[in-house]
Amino acid sequence: MLNYVHDIPTKVFFGHGAISSLKDALRPYGKNVLLTYGGGSIKKIGLYDTVIGILKDGGFNVTELSGIEPNPRIESVEAGVCLCKENGVDVILAVGGGSTIDCSKAIAAGVYYEGDLWGMVENRHGVLKALPLVDILTLSATGSEFDGGGVITNLKTKQKLGNMYTYPAVSICDPEYTFSVSAYQTAAGSADIMSHIFEGYFSRTMDSDLADGIAETILKSVMKNCPVAIKEPRNYVARANLMANSSVACSGIPEYGKQGTGWPCHAMEHELSAFYDITHGVGLAILTPRWMRHILKKDATSLPRFVRFAKNVMGLDGNDDMQLALQGIDALEAYFRSTGIPMTLTELGIGTENFEIMANHANAGGYLKNAFVDLTDEDIVEIYRSCL
Amino acid sequence: MLNYVHDIPTKVFFGHGAISSLKDALRPYGKNVLLTYGGGSIKKIGLYDTVIGILKDGGFNVTELSGIEPNPRIESVEAGVCLCKENGVDVILAVGGGSTIDCSKAIAAGVYYEGDLWGMVENRHGVLKALPLVDILTLSATGSEFDGGGVITNLKTKQKLGNMYTYPAVSICDPEYTFSVSAYQTAAGSADIMSHIFEGYFSRTMDSDLADGIAETILKSVMKNCPVAIKEPRNYVARANLMANSSVACSGIPEYGKQGTGWPCHAMEHELSAFYDITHGVGLAILTPRWMRHILKKDATSLPRFVRFAKNVMGLDGNDDMQLALQGIDALEAYFRSTGIPMTLTELGIGTENFEIMANHANAGGYLKNAFVDLTDEDIVEIYRSCL
Repeated sequence: MLNYVHDIPTKVFFGHGAISSLKDALRPYGKNVLLTYGGGSIKKIGLYDTVIGILKDGGFNVTELSGIEPNPRIESVEAGVCLCKENGVDVILAVGGGSTIDCSKAIAAGVYYEGDLWGMVENRHGVLKALPLVDILTLSATGSEFDGGGVITNLKTKQKLGNMYTYPAVSICDPEYTFSVSAYQTAAGSADIMSHIFEGYFSRTMDSDLADGIAETILKSVMKNCPVAIKEPRNYVARANLMANSSVACSGIPEYGKQGTGWPCHAMEHELSAFYDITHGVGLAILTPRWMRHILKKDATSLPRFVRFAKNVMGLDGNDDMQLALQGIDALEAYFRSTGIPMTLTELGIGTENFEIMANHANAGGYLKNAFVDLTDEDIVEIYRSCL
Repeated sequence: MLNYVHDIPTKVFFGHGAISSLKDALRPYGKNVLLTYGGGSIKKIGLYDTVIGILKDGGFNVTELSGIEPNPRIESVEAGVCLCKENGVDVILAVGGGSTIDCSKAIAAGVYYEGDLWGMVENRHGVLKALPLVDILTLSATGSEFDGGGVITNLKTKQKLGNMYTYPAVSICDPEYTFSVSAYQTAAGSADIMSHIFEGYFSRTMDSDLADGIAETILKSVMKNCPVAIKEPRNYVARANLMANSSVACSGIPEYGKQGTGWPCHAMEHELSAFYDITHGVGLAILTPRWMRHILKKDATSLPRFVRFAKNVMGLDGNDDMQLALQGIDALEAYFRSTGIPMTLTELGIGTENFEIMANHANAGGYLKNAFVDLTDEDIVEIYRSCL
């Protein structure tokens, strides 16, 4: 069990009606609010009107940044920073899913960042000085509501990079705001939650009980609740479990005490999104079982972790460890397929044309040299190929 | 799944050498430190000298409050508050187990409390204005290093009462500081960790996956690692898992989304400690299986939760639910007994003399009217009797 630091200052109000805490959450920071959101789904569900009503009633001055993209772009960060400076913004209120919150974190830090904002995204650093951020979550997926990181895309340079910016001061997590999330986005978001777990679960450290127990709990809970939420979009319990899972999955907690893994599927998926602007969670679901089969074949010392996964998460049993491990991976792939998302790159119109350059990018960040099983550029190309 | 608020501002440095963060943890708050500790075990393991060395090196002014009792008393709180006021203390550094940390929390809040300090202990309130508190943990048990509560005893009035005071700003959790903990205290502390889980696990809410999964993980991990730590006191992994479990067990996290239960075993045990000054964890271990059998018999609707416990925690299986439930409780009692602690009140020299008054006290706090299975005074007396 390795050393770790727990330092998550975010306060979470979870459950039905949690928005009643919004006014008090914003008030300590000032009157000038930058309201950020995406493509307008928050207007469809009436949340925009509710928020504007609360802000007006509280005497807040509101500046808006709308249209933040599903893979949020550096141009949105730049626009947000400009708006903050022009309007003397005191606090950012992000209403949306991980993309809106990620972008808002980069804006919050960008206000104080000297120099080119893409430089802030590219260079490794810890939490930065930032404007306070409050969010209202509308999608269970990225966990951005309970961590300090964000992922920003530069379509010009075909880069999608994660970095640390700031933790939300307050996250308002009401599962009812996810009732209108489509079956497709529910499945994709759930795959994203599961991938956050897989990235830390498949580690060489086998003795960090709490981290592994939380990881296995979240995987089982997502596979139980995602199909329910797809069938019954207004099932509160299913939506609530997915939302609670999403926050903890990406918080770092399920990796406490464990050796780092470089998050290989995220590194490979970020290339797919950067090159083809696909849905992040779908890319992860496609990659994950193929990555698993590849590393299990490449390095037999990974077997005990796969056996644990097959038993503790997929509920399988048997005497032949290798067979059990492979059955566990097959069962996972079958689960992903059952949620109705595309499970090949071909279905997304992606061919082999950029596999080499994407593999090179994925490895260049230093991500994958110390992965659970290390991956060369050739390994990554082979994994991409097996996703066709 | 019910609403919850997550608000734990404590920063935890976990692992070997974590004390290297001490100076930076204290520095923001000022130069005048109240160093609190218990009976001197921190001197035996050399931690006292290490801490004093770091404090001197950092130019801190140190006032000491030593001799804090295992069930910390109101007189120690009063003495600490006096020392803080006389010496213009800026920050409290608690070095010890839950008793030292609990007492230090009450001191931290007591400095700003107007009126009688026992009144502060007796009256229900939330987190209070308090001096900043940093702690170095030396016993895995109460979880006081990661929550805002404390339990203070008044031997004159025979009361032992829990209340909210303040969260530690920083907790330094190095499992090596628990290497010298005796087999008895290791077993008792581990029973305390498990009881913190049982109190929330046995709830009517069956659909809060993450909370229940964390609870089951901690119970299994404690039962795995406690016997190892008893046999091999310097086994880092066993000590580390116990320490990580202790912090999360009492944090409230394993109860997120679940209906409150009133913590019946703690209410009943606090009376035993208040009347007989026994080791808290031992009292809990004695009470827990008897409480379980009593409520299972009293209210058959509690059965599904007991079946879940027998299967998911004790690893049992079978077709007869009631038999399975009882086997789970028997297995738990056998586990406690195997750790070498007394498992009857008779062994502790406790007779029937105060059962009625203790039952009356335990219920008077309003604790047990809405328990998982509600308990009358008569129920509590019967549970105490079954512990003889």
